[in-house]
Amino acid sequence: MPYDYEKDGAAIYRQSFATIRAEADLARFAPDEEQIAVRMIHAAGMVGLESHIRFSPGFVQVARAALESGAPIFCDAHMVSEGVTRPRLPAENDVICTLRDPAVPGLAQELGNTRSAAALELWRPRLQGALVAIGNAPTALFHLLNMLQDPDCPRPAAIIGCPVGFVGAVESKAALWADQPVPCCVVEGRLGGSAITVAAINAIASRAE
Amino acid sequence: MPYDYEKDGAAIYRQSFATIRAEADLARFAPDEEQIAVRMIHAAGMVGLESHIRFSPGFVQVARAALESGAPIFCDAHMVSEGVTRPRLPAENDVICTLRDPAVPGLAQELGNTRSAAALELWRPRLQGALVAIGNAPTALFHLLNMLQDPDCPRPAAIIGCPVGFVGAVESKAALWADQPVPCCVVEGRLGGSAITVAAINAIASRAE
Repeated sequence: MPYDYEKDGAAIYRQSFATIRAEADLARFAPDEEQIAVRMIHAAGMVGLESHIRFSPGFVQVARAALESGAPIFCDAHMVSEGVTRPRLPAENDVICTLRDPAVPGLAQELGNTRSAAALELWRPRLQGALVAIGNAPTALFHLLNMLQDPDCPRPAAIIGCPVGFVGAVESKAALWADQPVPCCVVEGRLGGSAITVAAINAIASRAE
Repeated sequence: MPYDYEKDGAAIYRQSFATIRAEADLARFAPDEEQIAVRMIHAAGMVGLESHIRFSPGFVQVARAALESGAPIFCDAHMVSEGVTRPRLPAENDVICTLRDPAVPGLAQELGNTRSAAALELWRPRLQGALVAIGNAPTALFHLLNMLQDPDCPRPAAIIGCPVGFVGAVESKAALWADQPVPCCVVEGRLGGSAITVAAINAIASRAE
């Protein structure tokens, strides 16, 4: 007997989001933040993630306005840039990952850093006013914070800080939250990663559920 | 003051895997399975994931032999196919996601199913002996199991079953584990997703840490 299961994509989203709203503790989020947190929980398959999510004041409005005005989205990993749902973007925004640029290995050697961090040097020409999404490498987030200590470095509009893992993830996100060089969203602790980061971008891009 | 942090990629991996091995309960895994579980925990940033990971007997050997003999890897999402580290692959294996094939929207309508499920129909010509990785859509895993109920359907060598979420993820992975049409690895419950799935592929592809 073939398996019978829900095959309607819209119904799957509706039921998923209803389950999350029934189970998760979302009371401390503003409505715009709540929509983003719900989508992040959905991507992680994990009620409880909400207790690790932090939004700085104005983050959602600033990030959304940037996308509506056509700002590019810079991502530290191709798993992030590939996951962004293009039809949700309000202005056919460019989604850019520079990790495979041929200049990156040389830059990494020169900087004595990972390729994930070195790739950010190539963001400078279009970084002003952009949405930045770090969903993989703690070294990329640390390098971004160090770049932004230079007042001459172009400023992104907003930063999604969700690197994942066991070395530097906790520390780099704590540093972002302490510095707040621009409005930001973080997932505190070891959790994070490309799927959660993509979910945040997709939720900022459109209120549609 | 610029932040000081670990910038050496190899050292970051070593420290991460050492932390996971110190904290996670990996005793029930065979050595080949343990390497895969460690990498999955790493991708999720979550010690504790190991209690949800199941390998059927022979899975690692069969999946690894398939890759060594040049089998393609079929993925249900571009976030999965993009994440596979090409230099780890033993035979320059093709990594294939058919989700954006122009035939898929029509097939989905015809089947009354999601595009993620319909895209699997395009796998048939090269499915025999392939490694299959479902890291996103429960509908794709259910559809695969229904395809494999037909004895004339080509058989993959092994299946990684890690769809994520709140509708069908638990059920589709339980169905895979009950059916075991070929050797498989699953992450039971709601957890799963592209990052964990990619980690499993990358660990099967090479024992290098």
